[in-house]
Amino acid sequence: MSGSGEFDLIARIRARAPGHPSVVLGIGDDCAVLRPMDGRLEVVTTDMLMDGRHFVLAEVGPEAVGVKAMGVNLSDIAAMAAEPVAAFVSVALPQRGADSIAEGLMAGLSAMAGRFGVALAGGDTNAWDGPLVVCVTVIGRCGAAGPVTRSGAKPGDAILVTGPLGGSLLGRHLRPEPRIREAMRLRNGGHVHAMIDLSDGLSSDLRHVLAASGNLGATIDADAVPIHEDARSAAAGDGRSPLAHALDDGEDFELCLTMPEDRARAHVVNPDPDLRLWRIGTIEPNPGLWLRGADGALTPLPRGGFDHLRGEGA
Amino acid sequence: MSGSGEFDLIARIRARAPGHPSVVLGIGDDCAVLRPMDGRLEVVTTDMLMDGRHFVLAEVGPEAVGVKAMGVNLSDIAAMAAEPVAAFVSVALPQRGADSIAEGLMAGLSAMAGRFGVALAGGDTNAWDGPLVVCVTVIGRCGAAGPVTRSGAKPGDAILVTGPLGGSLLGRHLRPEPRIREAMRLRNGGHVHAMIDLSDGLSSDLRHVLAASGNLGATIDADAVPIHEDARSAAAGDGRSPLAHALDDGEDFELCLTMPEDRARAHVVNPDPDLRLWRIGTIEPNPGLWLRGADGALTPLPRGGFDHLRGEGA
Repeated sequence: MSGSGEFDLIARIRARAPGHPSVVLGIGDDCAVLRPMDGRLEVVTTDMLMDGRHFVLAEVGPEAVGVKAMGVNLSDIAAMAAEPVAAFVSVALPQRGADSIAEGLMAGLSAMAGRFGVALAGGDTNAWDGPLVVCVTVIGRCGAAGPVTRSGAKPGDAILVTGPLGGSLLGRHLRPEPRIREAMRLRNGGHVHAMIDLSDGLSSDLRHVLAASGNLGATIDADAVPIHEDARSAAAGDGRSPLAHALDDGEDFELCLTMPEDRARAHVVNPDPDLRLWRIGTIEPNPGLWLRGADGALTPLPRGGFDHLRGEGA
Repeated sequence: MSGSGEFDLIARIRARAPGHPSVVLGIGDDCAVLRPMDGRLEVVTTDMLMDGRHFVLAEVGPEAVGVKAMGVNLSDIAAMAAEPVAAFVSVALPQRGADSIAEGLMAGLSAMAGRFGVALAGGDTNAWDGPLVVCVTVIGRCGAAGPVTRSGAKPGDAILVTGPLGGSLLGRHLRPEPRIREAMRLRNGGHVHAMIDLSDGLSSDLRHVLAASGNLGATIDADAVPIHEDARSAAAGDGRSPLAHALDDGEDFELCLTMPEDRARAHVVNPDPDLRLWRIGTIEPNPGLWLRGADGALTPLPRGGFDHLRGEGA
């Protein structure tokens, strides 16, 4: 863990970012020192974002990059039903404009860290001739019941999502709202069998759950999928259907989870204002991902996504 | 935590890298899951290496990059007197040759992970049009007595290093030998007051210890500094002195530590074959870094390093 003297992003973040009672020693030594909670499991995630691939720096500016870099990692923490504790940020700054890029990045990173109570506990700052690269690693802590993984879905489970989907490329992908609060409420209920965050898109990410849970299948009710207004705008622009955008676009950063059908029904009857959930389908015992239309007809949802359907009907 | 399907470096590493009993869930979910040891503190470090800045891929090949990327992080873990548990690797692979670069990187990373008993527990694989970037984060575990930081040096302490210094740019900088074994023996002795790994060079890194320990000073005995044969080769090539190379070059990845003078003497009388130590100087109560020549004369060692001395005498 080190930082070039010239662009000491990390040292500057240090003054602004919140600490965390579990961070015994933050920025400034060879390592940060954390005090784990006795008996609690930890989760760790890391994501690297590169200019031109995950964002276009010249279009969005460095603050948005900081928000996204922290947000996508926090979303992975939420997907395990864990709470974030400490973040570590490594950056390769373009030499040209390094100082103001660092300043903007810092603003975005620490705004998100502050909102979600994560300590900025360390990192590594470098400058080079290449484009901006940001790598964030976040350590989180599980509840007493441990993490929720992708692998616990059971036939008959209801499938739910925490928000409307699709069209995130219109700009929402830069402002992930990690569902930490929702994950905390879900874990306290103790009924979630499997969970994942929607980064590649529902039609891809749900397959990960099905595969990890023992080659199960799923039926998605076309009418039940909550469609984001961005999906409608995107559909108006490109002629694909709003549902196709909702199923395939990705970078929604909503949670997709499964729980017993009766628990899902109980939630509908007695909704939690801090935990909005949309029930979108059912886990099936046999492999395959199916879309159920309003008329009850089942259409297979191919691996390549909804757009690969021959006769796109929705 | 995710990986592109195309160049799934992480999944391929998974098959080769050792696990660790503390890694409950490794690669394949939104996060890895670790089981901390009750009552033990953890350390975390992260370092990002970029082509053209920390290595030249075209000259050294991807395997050397993997070795270095893991090695520099393990060296930071050693500097806290901790043992490594789990590593997380994020990469931006150049599109051209991504597959063979990933393969080589993996070989280097897993060789080092295997040697030092670290699990490869997660990461993020991407490809882009830019140069190779590798970011490694390592989590380690402290002994019962906790970490050794930079800030515990005391006036009168002996200053020691774990190996000969200088000239690493001739190639040694690519093959760090993280002093994990030495750190384990040092922490069991329980007498180390402060420790740091030598990445920027003794004359820079020792200053970090002095500043963190309350603006102390130090005297380095010029004749006592162990000079690497690479420092002599470098000196023969550029006309600087071997001592200047040893003091300033950096990327030695040896440990520099302080302990009470009587403990250092005891080590000289009764050396540990698994822990070679060179006593190179003394911590002084007043600020300032001094070089003591064979004749006992003191010369200030300026902030810019030995080469900035007007009359370079050594």
